[in-house]
Amino acid sequence: MTRRRPVQIALLGCGTVGSGVAQLLAVNAEALAARVGAPIEIRHILVRNPDAERPAACRPEWLTTDPERVLDDPELDVVVEVMGGLEPAQQYLSRAMASGKSVVSANKLLLAKAGSALLAQAREASVDLYFEAAVGGGIPVVRTLREALTGDTVASVHGILNGTCNYILTRMKREKLGFQEVLKDAQELGYAEANPSMDVDGHDAAQKLVIVSRLAFGAAVEEAEVSVEGIRSIDQLDFSFAERMNYSIKHLAIGRVRPGALELRVHPALVPSQSVLANINDALNGVYIHGHALGPCLLVGQGAGQMPTAVSVVSDLVDVARNRLAGGAGTATRLIEPKETAVLPVASVETRYYLRFDVADDPGVLGRVANALGAEKISVEQLVQEASPVGTDAAVSILMLTHRSSQGAVDRALATVAKQDFMRGAPRRIRIEDI
Amino acid sequence: MTRRRPVQIALLGCGTVGSGVAQLLAVNAEALAARVGAPIEIRHILVRNPDAERPAACRPEWLTTDPERVLDDPELDVVVEVMGGLEPAQQYLSRAMASGKSVVSANKLLLAKAGSALLAQAREASVDLYFEAAVGGGIPVVRTLREALTGDTVASVHGILNGTCNYILTRMKREKLGFQEVLKDAQELGYAEANPSMDVDGHDAAQKLVIVSRLAFGAAVEEAEVSVEGIRSIDQLDFSFAERMNYSIKHLAIGRVRPGALELRVHPALVPSQSVLANINDALNGVYIHGHALGPCLLVGQGAGQMPTAVSVVSDLVDVARNRLAGGAGTATRLIEPKETAVLPVASVETRYYLRFDVADDPGVLGRVANALGAEKISVEQLVQEASPVGTDAAVSILMLTHRSSQGAVDRALATVAKQDFMRGAPRRIRIEDI
Repeated sequence: MTRRRPVQIALLGCGTVGSGVAQLLAVNAEALAARVGAPIEIRHILVRNPDAERPAACRPEWLTTDPERVLDDPELDVVVEVMGGLEPAQQYLSRAMASGKSVVSANKLLLAKAGSALLAQAREASVDLYFEAAVGGGIPVVRTLREALTGDTVASVHGILNGTCNYILTRMKREKLGFQEVLKDAQELGYAEANPSMDVDGHDAAQKLVIVSRLAFGAAVEEAEVSVEGIRSIDQLDFSFAERMNYSIKHLAIGRVRPGALELRVHPALVPSQSVLANINDALNGVYIHGHALGPCLLVGQGAGQMPTAVSVVSDLVDVARNRLAGGAGTATRLIEPKETAVLPVASVETRYYLRFDVADDPGVLGRVANALGAEKISVEQLVQEASPVGTDAAVSILMLTHRSSQGAVDRALATVAKQDFMRGAPRRIRIEDI
Repeated sequence: MTRRRPVQIALLGCGTVGSGVAQLLAVNAEALAARVGAPIEIRHILVRNPDAERPAACRPEWLTTDPERVLDDPELDVVVEVMGGLEPAQQYLSRAMASGKSVVSANKLLLAKAGSALLAQAREASVDLYFEAAVGGGIPVVRTLREALTGDTVASVHGILNGTCNYILTRMKREKLGFQEVLKDAQELGYAEANPSMDVDGHDAAQKLVIVSRLAFGAAVEEAEVSVEGIRSIDQLDFSFAERMNYSIKHLAIGRVRPGALELRVHPALVPSQSVLANINDALNGVYIHGHALGPCLLVGQGAGQMPTAVSVVSDLVDVARNRLAGGAGTATRLIEPKETAVLPVASVETRYYLRFDVADDPGVLGRVANALGAEKISVEQLVQEASPVGTDAAVSILMLTHRSSQGAVDRALATVAKQDFMRGAPRRIRIEDI
């Protein structure tokens, strides 16, 4: 193959992922040139502090603090955004696309909040906008949904999309520790942020679900439409009961096509211990896709981390660079046209439930709980009464698995029970996903 | 997006997969047109018997028995080969590419035997040659290796690539049945062919490994270079011992980069029960890829079957059709240039081993087995002596797990032991893959 002129790129940002990208471009330069059909050359790296310590692959002569110098450079083919945050990333990418540059972004927040607008702009400008690294780190989730399943329609996606939640739940289960204890350890080990709310309260997974839904269902949805619950309230009694019933507890992001609407929800769930999702542990991520014709397809890998994320960025860059050399942008981006899609109110979502009532050990309590459930036509499949864990003032915990029921009915029943004077703490519910 | 002229295609063959493709094209016509940017239209379906019963999606006016009519049609954009077999498939595809048509093939045998030549021809003709369905059915293995991991270099691939073997081993383990018993049942249920050798003796997996190695390692290798073992000799004693030691038995296809050479082998293996591969059951396939920068990545799904395979064919068709409309072929195919690569002699491959000796229950037997192993410097990590299974004339079975050792050393030691008069049947070995 004849040698072509190099593909000229700029990195916006040079933090963890950015310096990983620069290192991969250096280490694999020859292989990448063969795969693209031309060398990839970094022209600029936009940074805030040019004096920060960086690996040798981020050569000092590339560093600049001047965004104009980068964005106004007519020689650039591709802009790689690894700076994170909503602004100025969004305006930089807009300007880059407006001047005909293709774009690779690893920015989950940006893609979740402004992805539809950016995709529309990419279509109009006939440039590529690739973002494999924005969901699932090194796992080819975006590419699989965008390209591998174009022959089919996707019925549902169940994702373990937040590595911090999965790490915490895995250690709680394995070492029989409490949430706070593992969280503290995870923070010290770098698996959780000082402010862990984005992760453990489910917002990170919800943003990823927005991006996944755009690709899997062609749905233009917003984070606010996703029903979100985190993992803070899960304790050892939940784990021991789940295990006894042959379930594991995982934090899932779920999108599912229903007649006329989508279900979009992020929450902890009991999944059968033998299921593939139950066996994705530690900080790994997993995405279980069910296609109408395809059936099930599972992707598992490192959902975060410098090098796995950098691999996704560089692989996107290879695709985008190939497209430039072939004369223009690829069609993959331009043909994603998300449409307004109704989201099912979460009260109407039906699943089986795990219910837990920490109560005083008085006669008649079980009957009053059962009556409240019966009034909402919630039928109970299994029931266990347990001594409550040390540290609560409840005498016993009543644990139930229900048949399928709407969340509205369950929440109404739980609200009724919550008001009773025998209750010690709020009633709890965890959905069961028989996947 | 402006409506473009339809993409004109022909199907070569209309068996199980072909009629699945025709059905998907009919059912998803609108979505596919949106994804491609133009409708996909079938012009011809080449068949042997036009009168065979077919679904309505295979319209009678498309059927022809005349290959010239199909291959000489200048209006055709893409030829989809779903006929199987080496010839005439290969010459048809060669002719199609020579006249500028892009090609999608689901033909594992053809790609394994003639893939390098066909890829070279596609490069020269500047057309696409896509073949996602040739490995792993509905699992996007080819696409992931070809595109998602271009930013990285692959260190190893461990695949459960034969659904028949996986189905048989899963049922043997779960129901404690013998190989022959499950095979017979699998044949009746359609999970195994009347002549099961391609599957249960490992040849099918070896052909898939050849295709995978081309993509993962850029290696031009041939089936004859793959060391191949099947699953016929596995019995319940192996399963019960494996389970006691916390292993499962899986049939794996393994490619691994070693200094200056590749390991390429297909064989049953003990894998840790907690590993992701151990939990891929029934007829599912799975591919575990380890990238130098990426770390682990696992893909699981339906490795065969009409509709999963058809999804891969149609998704390839969407990509190829997009490339045609964008003006020419994509670059993904043309940049696969497999190189001559040395394959490590299997005698030099080192793993841990499970060894089994069915022997007469005489004094001194254990010592003589141990001496033979010691002479080859094979050290034993665990040892168990078991009553032999009913139906053998051995009194006891000696089961061992060894430390890492070369296959050459193990086979020499086993040859020595095999000659001893206390042996009841041949000694057996199964590799251990601590993945």
